[in-house]
Amino acid sequence: MNTPKKRSKASKENFGEGKPTPSNLNVDAISKIKSSRSVPRSVDYKDLTQELLRGNKMALARAISLVESARSDHHQIANKIIEESLPYGAKSIRIGITGVPGVGKSTFIDGIGSLLTELGHKVAVLAVDPSSSLSKGSILGDKTRMQNLAKDPNAYIRPTPTGNSLGGVASKTRESIVLCEAAGFNIIWIETVGVGQSEIAVHQMVDFFLLLQLPGAGDELQGIKRGIVEMADAIAINKADAERLPMAKRAKMEYSRALHLYPPKENGWVPKVLLCSAQENTGIMEVWEMIVKYIGETTENGHFLSKRKEQNRYWFLQAFEEGLNRKMQENSVVKEQKEKLLQEVMESRMSPLKAAEKLLKLI
Amino acid sequence: MNTPKKRSKASKENFGEGKPTPSNLNVDAISKIKSSRSVPRSVDYKDLTQELLRGNKMALARAISLVESARSDHHQIANKIIEESLPYGAKSIRIGITGVPGVGKSTFIDGIGSLLTELGHKVAVLAVDPSSSLSKGSILGDKTRMQNLAKDPNAYIRPTPTGNSLGGVASKTRESIVLCEAAGFNIIWIETVGVGQSEIAVHQMVDFFLLLQLPGAGDELQGIKRGIVEMADAIAINKADAERLPMAKRAKMEYSRALHLYPPKENGWVPKVLLCSAQENTGIMEVWEMIVKYIGETTENGHFLSKRKEQNRYWFLQAFEEGLNRKMQENSVVKEQKEKLLQEVMESRMSPLKAAEKLLKLI
Repeated sequence: MNTPKKRSKASKENFGEGKPTPSNLNVDAISKIKSSRSVPRSVDYKDLTQELLRGNKMALARAISLVESARSDHHQIANKIIEESLPYGAKSIRIGITGVPGVGKSTFIDGIGSLLTELGHKVAVLAVDPSSSLSKGSILGDKTRMQNLAKDPNAYIRPTPTGNSLGGVASKTRESIVLCEAAGFNIIWIETVGVGQSEIAVHQMVDFFLLLQLPGAGDELQGIKRGIVEMADAIAINKADAERLPMAKRAKMEYSRALHLYPPKENGWVPKVLLCSAQENTGIMEVWEMIVKYIGETTENGHFLSKRKEQNRYWFLQAFEEGLNRKMQENSVVKEQKEKLLQEVMESRMSPLKAAEKLLKLI
Repeated sequence: MNTPKKRSKASKENFGEGKPTPSNLNVDAISKIKSSRSVPRSVDYKDLTQELLRGNKMALARAISLVESARSDHHQIANKIIEESLPYGAKSIRIGITGVPGVGKSTFIDGIGSLLTELGHKVAVLAVDPSSSLSKGSILGDKTRMQNLAKDPNAYIRPTPTGNSLGGVASKTRESIVLCEAAGFNIIWIETVGVGQSEIAVHQMVDFFLLLQLPGAGDELQGIKRGIVEMADAIAINKADAERLPMAKRAKMEYSRALHLYPPKENGWVPKVLLCSAQENTGIMEVWEMIVKYIGETTENGHFLSKRKEQNRYWFLQAFEEGLNRKMQENSVVKEQKEKLLQEVMESRMSPLKAAEKLLKLI
């Protein structure tokens, strides 16, 4: 691996001065850190893991940052922490929640999350939203949209990492779930925007998938695709209050009818339709009771565990694919050849397919 | 590469009997074809390419099927056809069109497409819709939604390939564009559903990106994210007819104002907002004239070409990534080890991350 020349000036900066070199970092990674211009804080992953397991939110935040980092040394430390965190997920409940912007997801999560911490649970909220690549927007933005949870000591809110790759964001979310669980958060909400590809990714990492809908507006106008309704374990019709109540009741009937048209789920669960109003704080407890019922039933018939195992399969395949891409990015021969071929493509001297073929021959 | 034993029975089946072995297939691919149980039709890619370049729609359909095929021998033939097709794309116009279900995309494309064939153009319509992974649904479904174009000899409609991987679907669409162009179709519409990740993929393969909107309903209700509005080169407010006209005019004003808030596009183009009604056939010609103006301006200032070059860059990187994954799937050592590790993951004897790490060490 070449150390870029222009960065060598920084090689004397104080990385790990006076501390033993952590044995978990390879030489390659160290040389990279040393050559990096930013001053890296050395990470003692054992301390960090210990703090994380104690439920220290700062440690949790730092561990998630390591997961989200693009640096390969961070990645290696993150993997070690995750490895030690994995045994703690068995008793958690992972809930995916989706719905179009404006349906009231934040208010709903704020309400049900507060209810859950009152019941003695510890609640984490993560978000997946890779669809706004130009504006780099985030669903959560900041924590102001969940005012109660934001100041609740038993809650943890983490905005989404932004990025172009859905797979990347999704796997980081998956790893963040594990870290939250190790830090003692036993109910994990994963929020997504309800209109595209990200639902599928989230569906593959949760135990329960909840779709929030508005009363009145049809599926089409809500931009909710048939495939997403199909994935839902329940539909909660939010904003079912005051003059919207009759509309909401009608919507409930229609969805109940629609859901019956789908083939029954393998785990025996019949998707439910509920009414609620996060604003008025009605129907929220019922949603939670239903989720508890679902977890009970699927735990008993074994589907809870078999679903998690199946999800681990996805995780493995995805982690391999990502690792492979990372490996290619880090290999200096591939990198050099790639740059050269890219040049030829940009100058229209070679077709993109031909160039890809040539690069593949290197491997 | 091992030939799977259980398939060797089929090795005598009549692949290419009495025909010279095409020199473009490597030994590996041939042994695979021979071992395949299905009776493969031998594909003479030179004949097919010739027919394609003559504008034969059957040949075009067959070439796109090769592109969409998961078989690696098909893939190799497809790449050769694409390579010979590439020079023909320079004079085409590639237009992405998006909007939520119900906005009237099909009717709009049917209308503007018919107008274009009347003007002497040849029009192809492709679709990208990977978001409905469970129901395997397609936007276009069949051709009944574009009744005029479906029977127009100068139009070609191709429903989307369904699948889980957005990247995969997107790159197949990109390759299908090239094939359509080689078959003489000079205006290519790429339809997508307007609510998620697929817009970004489509945006990366078109010259012009058109967003269809409904009059009245706000962005939020339409499930259109800020990022998608930002990508649009124009917004056409469809169904702007009869009693909806005042609403549509108001929407036009609002969008025009909103678009001015975005930073100006690098190519100097100021996104336009137009009114139209595909049903009533009004405003359609104006949309086309605007696209012609855009192509003219960006061709003149060089951005048309530089955008295509930039898109080739994406294509190259994506083709490499896909090729890499294919290579891994075909490598028997990796395959075997993968199965073994997968077993351990499924039986909870190894964590998904650890397993991925082990598999990566093989490479």
